[in-house]
Amino acid sequence: MAEFDLVVRRARCATAADVFEADIGIRDGVIVALGNALATGKEEIDAAGRWVLPGGIDGHCHLDQPTSDGTQMADDFLTGTRSAACGGTTTIFPFACQIKGQSLRAAVEDYHQRAEGKACIDYAFHLIVTDPTPEVLAVELPELIREGYTSFKIYMTYDDLKLADREIIDVLAVAREHGAMVMVHAENADCIAWLTERLIANGHTAPRYHAAARPMLVEREATHRAIAYAELVDVPILIVHVSGREAMEQLRWAHQHGLRVYAETCPQYLFLTADDLGLDDDPQGAKCICSPPPRDKANQQLVWDGLENGVFQVFSSDHAPFTFDGPQGKFAAGEEASFDHIPNGIPGLETRLALLFSHGVETGRITIQQFVALTATNVARMYGVYPRKGSIAIGADADLVIWDTGLDRTIRNVDLHHAVDYTPYEGLKVNSWPAITLSRGRVVWKDSSYLGEAGYGNFLHCDLPVPARPKFKVGAGIKENG
Amino acid sequence: MAEFDLVVRRARCATAADVFEADIGIRDGVIVALGNALATGKEEIDAAGRWVLPGGIDGHCHLDQPTSDGTQMADDFLTGTRSAACGGTTTIFPFACQIKGQSLRAAVEDYHQRAEGKACIDYAFHLIVTDPTPEVLAVELPELIREGYTSFKIYMTYDDLKLADREIIDVLAVAREHGAMVMVHAENADCIAWLTERLIANGHTAPRYHAAARPMLVEREATHRAIAYAELVDVPILIVHVSGREAMEQLRWAHQHGLRVYAETCPQYLFLTADDLGLDDDPQGAKCICSPPPRDKANQQLVWDGLENGVFQVFSSDHAPFTFDGPQGKFAAGEEASFDHIPNGIPGLETRLALLFSHGVETGRITIQQFVALTATNVARMYGVYPRKGSIAIGADADLVIWDTGLDRTIRNVDLHHAVDYTPYEGLKVNSWPAITLSRGRVVWKDSSYLGEAGYGNFLHCDLPVPARPKFKVGAGIKENG
Amino acid sequence: MAEFDLVVRRARCATAADVFEADIGIRDGVIVALGNALATGKEEIDAAGRWVLPGGIDGHCHLDQPTSDGTQMADDFLTGTRSAACGGTTTIFPFACQIKGQSLRAAVEDYHQRAEGKACIDYAFHLIVTDPTPEVLAVELPELIREGYTSFKIYMTYDDLKLADREIIDVLAVAREHGAMVMVHAENADCIAWLTERLIANGHTAPRYHAAARPMLVEREATHRAIAYAELVDVPILIVHVSGREAMEQLRWAHQHGLRVYAETCPQYLFLTADDLGLDDDPQGAKCICSPPPRDKANQQLVWDGLENGVFQVFSSDHAPFTFDGPQGKFAAGEEASFDHIPNGIPGLETRLALLFSHGVETGRITIQQFVALTATNVARMYGVYPRKGSIAIGADADLVIWDTGLDRTIRNVDLHHAVDYTPYEGLKVNSWPAITLSRGRVVWKDSSYLGEAGYGNFLHCDLPVPARPKFKVGAGIKENG
Amino acid sequence: MAEFDLVVRRARCATAADVFEADIGIRDGVIVALGNALATGKEEIDAAGRWVLPGGIDGHCHLDQPTSDGTQMADDFLTGTRSAACGGTTTIFPFACQIKGQSLRAAVEDYHQRAEGKACIDYAFHLIVTDPTPEVLAVELPELIREGYTSFKIYMTYDDLKLADREIIDVLAVAREHGAMVMVHAENADCIAWLTERLIANGHTAPRYHAAARPMLVEREATHRAIAYAELVDVPILIVHVSGREAMEQLRWAHQHGLRVYAETCPQYLFLTADDLGLDDDPQGAKCICSPPPRDKANQQLVWDGLENGVFQVFSSDHAPFTFDGPQGKFAAGEEASFDHIPNGIPGLETRLALLFSHGVETGRITIQQFVALTATNVARMYGVYPRKGSIAIGADADLVIWDTGLDRTIRNVDLHHAVDYTPYEGLKVNSWPAITLSRGRVVWKDSSYLGEAGYGNFLHCDLPVPARPKFKVGAGIKENG
Repeated sequence: MAEFDLVVRRARCATAADVFEADIGIRDGVIVALGNALATGKEEIDAAGRWVLPGGIDGHCHLDQPTSDGTQMADDFLTGTRSAACGGTTTIFPFACQIKGQSLRAAVEDYHQRAEGKACIDYAFHLIVTDPTPEVLAVELPELIREGYTSFKIYMTYDDLKLADREIIDVLAVAREHGAMVMVHAENADCIAWLTERLIANGHTAPRYHAAARPMLVEREATHRAIAYAELVDVPILIVHVSGREAMEQLRWAHQHGLRVYAETCPQYLFLTADDLGLDDDPQGAKCICSPPPRDKANQQLVWDGLENGVFQVFSSDHAPFTFDGPQGKFAAGEEASFDHIPNGIPGLETRLALLFSHGVETGRITIQQFVALTATNVARMYGVYPRKGSIAIGADADLVIWDTGLDRTIRNVDLHHAVDYTPYEGLKVNSWPAITLSRGRVVWKDSSYLGEAGYGNFLHCDLPVPARPKFKVGAGIKENG
Repeated sequence: MAEFDLVVRRARCATAADVFEADIGIRDGVIVALGNALATGKEEIDAAGRWVLPGGIDGHCHLDQPTSDGTQMADDFLTGTRSAACGGTTTIFPFACQIKGQSLRAAVEDYHQRAEGKACIDYAFHLIVTDPTPEVLAVELPELIREGYTSFKIYMTYDDLKLADREIIDVLAVAREHGAMVMVHAENADCIAWLTERLIANGHTAPRYHAAARPMLVEREATHRAIAYAELVDVPILIVHVSGREAMEQLRWAHQHGLRVYAETCPQYLFLTADDLGLDDDPQGAKCICSPPPRDKANQQLVWDGLENGVFQVFSSDHAPFTFDGPQGKFAAGEEASFDHIPNGIPGLETRLALLFSHGVETGRITIQQFVALTATNVARMYGVYPRKGSIAIGADADLVIWDTGLDRTIRNVDLHHAVDYTPYEGLKVNSWPAITLSRGRVVWKDSSYLGEAGYGNFLHCDLPVPARPKFKVGAGIKENG
Repeated sequence: MAEFDLVVRRARCATAADVFEADIGIRDGVIVALGNALATGKEEIDAAGRWVLPGGIDGHCHLDQPTSDGTQMADDFLTGTRSAACGGTTTIFPFACQIKGQSLRAAVEDYHQRAEGKACIDYAFHLIVTDPTPEVLAVELPELIREGYTSFKIYMTYDDLKLADREIIDVLAVAREHGAMVMVHAENADCIAWLTERLIANGHTAPRYHAAARPMLVEREATHRAIAYAELVDVPILIVHVSGREAMEQLRWAHQHGLRVYAETCPQYLFLTADDLGLDDDPQGAKCICSPPPRDKANQQLVWDGLENGVFQVFSSDHAPFTFDGPQGKFAAGEEASFDHIPNGIPGLETRLALLFSHGVETGRITIQQFVALTATNVARMYGVYPRKGSIAIGADADLVIWDTGLDRTIRNVDLHHAVDYTPYEGLKVNSWPAITLSRGRVVWKDSSYLGEAGYGNFLHCDLPVPARPKFKVGAGIKENG
Repeated sequence: MAEFDLVVRRARCATAADVFEADIGIRDGVIVALGNALATGKEEIDAAGRWVLPGGIDGHCHLDQPTSDGTQMADDFLTGTRSAACGGTTTIFPFACQIKGQSLRAAVEDYHQRAEGKACIDYAFHLIVTDPTPEVLAVELPELIREGYTSFKIYMTYDDLKLADREIIDVLAVAREHGAMVMVHAENADCIAWLTERLIANGHTAPRYHAAARPMLVEREATHRAIAYAELVDVPILIVHVSGREAMEQLRWAHQHGLRVYAETCPQYLFLTADDLGLDDDPQGAKCICSPPPRDKANQQLVWDGLENGVFQVFSSDHAPFTFDGPQGKFAAGEEASFDHIPNGIPGLETRLALLFSHGVETGRITIQQFVALTATNVARMYGVYPRKGSIAIGADADLVIWDTGLDRTIRNVDLHHAVDYTPYEGLKVNSWPAITLSRGRVVWKDSSYLGEAGYGNFLHCDLPVPARPKFKVGAGIKENG
């Protein structure tokens, strides 16, 4: 009788720390043995000579998320998780977004219904807190944290999402007391609004002016402010989608002053620039509209440096799937009005890992271990699904990706599995792509075929990513010469 | 017949640039000659061996200013200008403060009435903009600037004064277009409120907790934000009452990036520390409550360094005169409730110059020219009364101070001429004090006697301190890699 | 028949990335299996409930090293490796030091003789390059690198060790071309000499003046200079024994500018301060003389922060064993002359891990994974013995430490196994200590008994820690606006 | 009988602080009166509507200076001072350069002989200390300082000039004790040599590679090091010819830490870029070879910012006059060998003021007062000739320049009065130029004619620019947490 359900043979494994060659023995979807010559499995996969890595965890993606203006996202949990699996991602964190006026509990329940029966890989929820009423702060958040919703995102911009500064502080204080991780979208809403008004008044409505409306100072200021509030409350935070130099300098300042400020960056800041938003008469530029906008080549290099030397812990897609064509598409929105009516966000769930592997690991910019840390292990830790997810280790879920390298492949949207009608990376070369994706020991992607099953994916209740701390006491957290 | 109304003989003059010995010839209140052996004057003063400096200009003081809670300031234009004159100050800039809901025009007219017939030295008005309605922005401010009210202060804290962030940007845009100087009180209101609530909830109500409620991050964050808005609009600003290291680092960052961010500091940041707010059971600490609060010894040194090496352009008193005793005094306010009910601000009009001269010039920390620049010339330039005020030069008003040095004097409130019942500097030693103060050639202080006359002081219409600039055009002011 | 030579059961394993519980199967000194219920071993150790970590790698220690003045080090490879093993360290990197005038080859051969038959754990050599003649640069270094001596240290101070600046650049160029790692002792020799002369001329000869002769600027300047040379040559470097703020700021500057500058810190910068050098009449202070000297409490905190947030990659002992008593001891040296005659360096091989585990991991300052990374995995990678050493992974040497925690233990020199007659940490509390140390599957420390065997330890030929790069071509490495 | 020798009527005067309109009364070469309607002079000049400024002081120029390789400078005191006068400069500071092995006294005496009878304007000497023997440090420097040679320059590069690091510290200690100002040429010699060797080995010999051999890190490193030594000794220094961002960041760091580090910049960093060194086959590029080399447009802007916001105190020409043609010219040197044989330095005495006035004052980048401060007053103060020189004030020498503005003039070398056969600014537009230059009341330049007289210029003995301080005592100057 076979000792294992599945053995992956001669895997060239990498974790966030290590590389080693081993057979991987899997039982009941869990890694139960690593060794040189493991006993036989009911099934076996020969991975000789190929990298086997922990399945990717995408800590930042939007699927079937209610929007204030009724715009429908192109991907739901079905197409979104399918696309993820085909790109080597085995766990995702989409957002249960509170609509202002709605209870957080209602938002969570609604979002569970949207997910129900659709996901082919495992998933957890971040919360988006948009309306931190006393009830939300005192009751709902603490309860939801206890139930395994232990990370939430707050916005400093977007009228329908953004919190007032005092609300930010209040939410941070709840996170501190109950041990949750707060993700911050750091852009200054007033600067953006002021610039946008002036741009539009001057007839500057093309997609490219989206970037002009969000210069780096917009991001720098909000990053500084968010860090100041985290310093005030003495609680870790995580700044999402950092785009370049000015925000990175703020992060390093925080580190030099002993603050635990974590940060995420995304493929768009490595592979796109503001030039990709096109010229004045180019509606195609709408395909690259996201916030913060991509910067320039020099900033791309700085972001690469930051992946290498530790300013970033997490590399996510910020997948925000809006179609280009169609009545609700970016093109229609841009045609009718101006850049500020075009939905913000770009797809990227499926391409995230291959882009970073090809242009990061294979070029020597980052190590294979850093790749694993940035795309899986650190994400699992930051958001409380470690050690169940995020590594190749005894007891971990058998979420694995076997990689093909040395390919001569060009990214084409027709080859992708999301429901968006374009990819901003169309035409980009990659030399690596997942050959096989395993979710808890089950093959969901192989031989360029999607083999997953809607509903197979489980919802994950998350642990506390940071220890709960006593209520803030004045004096303690305030260092005059910090 | 005498050629001059007054000749000051053998004056050891200093300007913001120069030191020289000369006779000063004055006619009609104006300096008309400087020379080695001027012809005779109707009156003569022998200044041999003594410094003769431009009269001080206090660019930041509060007199008879309406307050939202009805608290009466101790000094009006009579006692305030008297106190100024006795301390060597010959021009002041108090604030015409708009009450929310009120028109700026009404605030200015009201303030003229309060000043009418009282001032013994010349004065101009800064405006405080608290309610920048479309009418204020589009009509009142431009008109008032044209009429000579060319500088205004905005607040980032205090419920009755503070502007929303978008209002700050809008006010800066008006300043840019019409050539006015914007002074910014940079403290983060939400941080202060949050800390204050927690302090009071924990029974920490003594004056010293005023400082605990305003740690340096409160000032640093607001300073960074104000600078970002000035960078956005591409307009100079002046940060008032900077207290130490964290805000100063922001200023230097701005300078390195080519931004015109000017700054003021005050005697309280050189001579007081947070320890002066006393212990838990010490109501006397209320005498030193001002915002930002004084910091520590190390920060005092940094502020001295900044005076020496150019991070500060202006040294003001921020005179905010509230009595300690009496039904509306600081003591009563503190007794009844807690630190957050104690009026913010300390008196300092009369002591400003002697403190800086004694502890700055006489110790060699700053040069006599820097003293003149910081206390007079730069102030005149920043606020549009130069070259009429602020120097010893042909054509300038004969606002002069003849200094006694080598004194062994102790500051005592009984010797001062304001209407406040204490000075925070009680007991501090000074070795210098004005011997004679001249306002437009008229002696207003001599032999330790006040010789001024209510109503003698003129109102000054100010020139544009910075050139008016074309309306902001997007693109121009935004440098991606600034 | 037993499948394994040894099985460590139910080990609570940690790597630099992961924590997991597993049985560890060992054969021929190598980890060959990890799993839930491994087959039996000839020997078994039950580690249930205890941390099992990779054996420590001390990347910076001095044993039996020839000194220019003939001072004998207290520890040789026998006592040194014994002490290491008893403290949980299973690999060491002492230094084959070139005496000026000597060939590097001769230094290496001499050092092999000193090590021969004595080590009870594995060891590799760093080279110390003190005389980079053309022969050394063109022939010896490239050859030795090829033979597995792939890291070397250079000194910016100490008359008998220091390189001229041009020599530093030349050595860096060799490292770049052949793929070696250069460790830099960064202190400015001239500043130290100048201060030392003045101190001694003023009769300031006590140990405490060692710290006065080496203020932080001494370290900051040399760090900046070393970074500039690494930037010039475009090659990674590693700054050893960083003591605090000023040098750390330089490191972060380098990271922000994309330079690969790695850094080490040591227990002395976490647990000692300059106060430990005693008062004027205190010869005991000599026990804490090391360079750079320990700083103050605030700097200790900054070093802790740097361990947590990634400014440091490596945590070493910088074990430099000189006795206090005895004819060549620190006391005699200090008695006769002055602080500058006291041998620099303190012992620390045995206490390094327990100090960091107790005060870092157990207090929550760093994670267990960070502990492993800093004390083992990163060291192995930086110096080319990974993946053979530094982790718990299939194929790695079975160098393991099983930890006891929850102890109430006080560090006493009588309990240590080095040949030094004191420890600077005498009296410090630790709550954790290695229960069992395994070197390639062999128990060398257990039940507070040393069980190693002289000569068991193997010499390790190291791989290239960084890829060899083409010879420097001007233009390539120089970025005008870096 | 006329009361004055000369009256300049209705002058629109500017000092470093003030602007005012006045008649200027001059007697015996000294300004004795300023006033509205002064009595008559033997001579009168009507300056109505024109700026009258203090004559320029060039604090950094090389004339007839002995060079180690025998290269003759094109300008001696005759042509040099003539050129200066025609450009509005009335005082110069050339360098009495010690040849290694020579006594400083001998260097000074030799230099006096070179100056004797030739200068048409006043002059003082900086010393260049290249060989700080014990005699020089203990006897010559103190004596020469007492005699009025109170500033000296030291080099960190150039084989025949540069000091060892310990020598730098020793010279700084003398400056501290005797009150002299030390000017530092901050470039790292070893980096330059290393890059130069590689460039030449690769056949990169054209002038443009001069810039490639001196990237900004070369200047940054040396600036940091010089600042560290000044911090060590606790003495002010002045960094000469700062070229851009990286060095400026070091200066601001120093200011934030309370160090008195002054700085100079020059026209070449405002008006030239590295592109002016030409392409590979362009010998003309040699005309712009100076050290540090000019950088790029972005750095020009940063230097302008630094003039505006106070990072620079002094604006000098660094006039170093070598011909392009001729047997010793730059062309010949470059033809024969390579960029490293081309004499370093460019002419600029005559064009300095007009360039800054036209492109700085007239464009609004700096104020007229800043112009005066940077080109005259601050220079006089930094080097000890104030208040005799550097301002328009009672008692000051009547060194004055009456400016023509609104010109449409192009800089042409044929119009200049130096003995160099080119100007690097050929073809640059200026809209302002001195109409009349007065040296101690004597017209030396008027109606585009040189009217000076060789030998008229006096040698100036300089006062101490900084107070002499007690000998350095260890402890005092060292701040652990500076």
